[in-house]
Amino acid sequence: MTLVPDPLLAPLPSGLPEVKHHARIPAGFTAAGTTSGIKPSGRPDFSLVAATGGAVPAAGVFTPNRVPAAPVRLSRANLRATGGGEATCGVARAVVATSGCANAATGAAGDADQAAIGVAVASALGCRPQEVLHLSTGVIGTRLPVDVVTAEVARVAPGGLAPTDDALLAAAASLRTTDSVTKVATVAVTLPAAAGGTVACTVTGICKGVGMIHPRMATLLALVLTDATASPETLRDLLRRAAATTWDQLSVDGDTSTNDTVLLLASGAAGAASADDDPDTRAALGRAIEAVARDLARQQARDGEGASSLITCQVSGAADDADARAVARAVISSSLVKAAIHGRDANWGRIAGAAGNATLAEAAVLEAAGLAPGVAAGRAGQPAALDPDRMRIAIAGQVAYDGPAGGPAGIDKAAAREALAADEVLIRLDLGLGDGTGEAFGCPLTEGYVKENAEYTT
Amino acid sequence: MTLVPDPLLAPLPSGLPEVKHHARIPAGFTAAGTTSGIKPSGRPDFSLVAATGGAVPAAGVFTPNRVPAAPVRLSRANLRATGGGEATCGVARAVVATSGCANAATGAAGDADQAAIGVAVASALGCRPQEVLHLSTGVIGTRLPVDVVTAEVARVAPGGLAPTDDALLAAAASLRTTDSVTKVATVAVTLPAAAGGTVACTVTGICKGVGMIHPRMATLLALVLTDATASPETLRDLLRRAAATTWDQLSVDGDTSTNDTVLLLASGAAGAASADDDPDTRAALGRAIEAVARDLARQQARDGEGASSLITCQVSGAADDADARAVARAVISSSLVKAAIHGRDANWGRIAGAAGNATLAEAAVLEAAGLAPGVAAGRAGQPAALDPDRMRIAIAGQVAYDGPAGGPAGIDKAAAREALAADEVLIRLDLGLGDGTGEAFGCPLTEGYVKENAEYTT
Repeated sequence: MTLVPDPLLAPLPSGLPEVKHHARIPAGFTAAGTTSGIKPSGRPDFSLVAATGGAVPAAGVFTPNRVPAAPVRLSRANLRATGGGEATCGVARAVVATSGCANAATGAAGDADQAAIGVAVASALGCRPQEVLHLSTGVIGTRLPVDVVTAEVARVAPGGLAPTDDALLAAAASLRTTDSVTKVATVAVTLPAAAGGTVACTVTGICKGVGMIHPRMATLLALVLTDATASPETLRDLLRRAAATTWDQLSVDGDTSTNDTVLLLASGAAGAASADDDPDTRAALGRAIEAVARDLARQQARDGEGASSLITCQVSGAADDADARAVARAVISSSLVKAAIHGRDANWGRIAGAAGNATLAEAAVLEAAGLAPGVAAGRAGQPAALDPDRMRIAIAGQVAYDGPAGGPAGIDKAAAREALAADEVLIRLDLGLGDGTGEAFGCPLTEGYVKENAEYTT
Repeated sequence: MTLVPDPLLAPLPSGLPEVKHHARIPAGFTAAGTTSGIKPSGRPDFSLVAATGGAVPAAGVFTPNRVPAAPVRLSRANLRATGGGEATCGVARAVVATSGCANAATGAAGDADQAAIGVAVASALGCRPQEVLHLSTGVIGTRLPVDVVTAEVARVAPGGLAPTDDALLAAAASLRTTDSVTKVATVAVTLPAAAGGTVACTVTGICKGVGMIHPRMATLLALVLTDATASPETLRDLLRRAAATTWDQLSVDGDTSTNDTVLLLASGAAGAASADDDPDTRAALGRAIEAVARDLARQQARDGEGASSLITCQVSGAADDADARAVARAVISSSLVKAAIHGRDANWGRIAGAAGNATLAEAAVLEAAGLAPGVAAGRAGQPAALDPDRMRIAIAGQVAYDGPAGGPAGIDKAAAREALAADEVLIRLDLGLGDGTGEAFGCPLTEGYVKENAEYTT
């Protein structure tokens, strides 16, 4: 007789390519990260990334917040102007990012400030202001020191931009606010070349964001660059799909920001065949983008404010993937589950309670915002299908609840305490209903989170 | 010239009758609160409330959690059996409550335990088991010591039940888990008498719940008793309406429980005319019930785990009441707003960010659960209407953001720090769009909340 390991005790396979934590800059881009003087702390606060050969296809996903920051409004308007009239894809020559001041809730004056920065970048690079996209993060409700920023633009562009990994790493570092580490991820993907044969392409992402983070796109700032080839519409579709299973499944504190933006730019400089025309190429590029997005989202959860570990919840056996994602999201969003993990308490009862509370409501919000079309499919407000008598829960490697076996499974609490001290905690649920799978990423709720956010004005 | 005070700096009028914090027991009921031995701490943990004249009309609202506790399942089944086949209203002779063990996620064995308690109560009172409703709260996933509870039933009923305020206060005290105070509220209401003239009636509520609380009915345990006269269906409608503006607008930590239940029983013992037949009587009874529910919800927010003050957010000028309630709920549910209030930081930017994130998604959940029919009205997932250029925000008595005047209003931070130390903090928003109003209740997020929930298995 062979003992088959309980699949509930193993992670679900991701099926995604390997990710490395390098700031590998794709061909066709230059970057810079500097200190302009926005932050009183004197830390890096200015980034500029530019395509070297003129404007390139670009796509964005933006916060649906009704109080969107000036950079969000301007980026959307610019994509609308350069694309087909849609605010989510077009072309872009450059992405300018500032940290330390969100330029949110600043009214018409804030819009004018952001526009002035766009004009400065366009002037320095010799492009149209509409070809500049904007990211900003920091304190809400204060004005950007626009003269400081435009002076930095003039100092950096074009001479200070470099096509190097170090330059992109510096750009990533300049995005940080309360992040304790710089976040980068890269995937190498071999694609068919336009000229026949194959070519090595790169997808690299940089991001910031460790608080005010919740699934409602994009919950952070991120910039993903590739030297593969794709149209704005293809980029938009691949980015939305990647976000739906990664950043939309990430929660640090249940809050969402006025500035959340993820941008994806494709230079085409590697000479790959267009992903528009070939399903296999499109799928391979999509997996590479998703792998980068997933890894960045996990880095963000792990670095969540006040947190010291990553909580991953993976759900199998759901009626469908949307249900599985809803349940996973409910578990990692629960303050009580998060506090229990912080306390190294394998409190599966709170996990069951959170799972039982999962609904398609968040999916409906994403759908209404155009971020995940068709996901909720008229099921807004409905609970995710769940039957406690079929559900099984494992936490940190032990089966804690086994519905088909009558309920509580009895766990070794001391062993659980040991396991919950790990750098990453896996919560697995199997709902016993169907083939749906999904995952979500979060972090413990700690006294440090409260302290940080009670004392720091963001 | 007369200076008109800015209405943004004043609370919205509630239009509800005065509430007193007494456990005034309505005519026709007896009660007891005792210590049976469920809790290792030896604190009170058993309550029994009974109608003296046989079964009386009763209504309930219950958690829509997919992992409902045994007492929730049994109460719903019993109302269905004694009413018109609906699980939300029927008749009841008694309500039995235990604290210290939730009897949730305990499978078929937990259902059998709860049924045995119902049989014991029915046997002691000489009624049918279907006429007993059940409340339970405490640790999830452990079995009730059913012999301990049934022995306590035999000891208390019927001889230990008393028609006194002290007995009802003891019943309220026995509901407590992590509550720091016993929560009671009462309203006196004069209604037309069945025999002509008028009669003084009483509506009194008792409740528990200071954690695992979020708007998704009922988020707590509460029992409301009245000696007024109404049918089960009228009680159901009045209770749902009251809950929609009170308990469904209450959040402590964003979590919802497996055991949430609110019950309303009407003995008819005061001799009032039926509220079924006269709109004025119905409205007056409805306002009294809503006043009790609102006051209890505010007591719960103020006693939120780790919290030391009450945060009330009141919204006016919304497109409609549903939008106003959604915005108020988003503000008081925001971890960042809650942490800022704890830090006595008048961080209106976080308030603006949270308001901008408000959607009808939670309303859709309530609607799908049959708790607030018609509220979302097909707008599930849609954002609440909000225009930053029209919005105004006041916090702790100062206007902080004035959209029509260009945005940030500039506040006296020292004065705000002083004001935020108060026992109650009022956040006011006016959206400048319409006549919709709404409010919500929450509490600061503190290190104490995290500590309590990291160390205590609930």
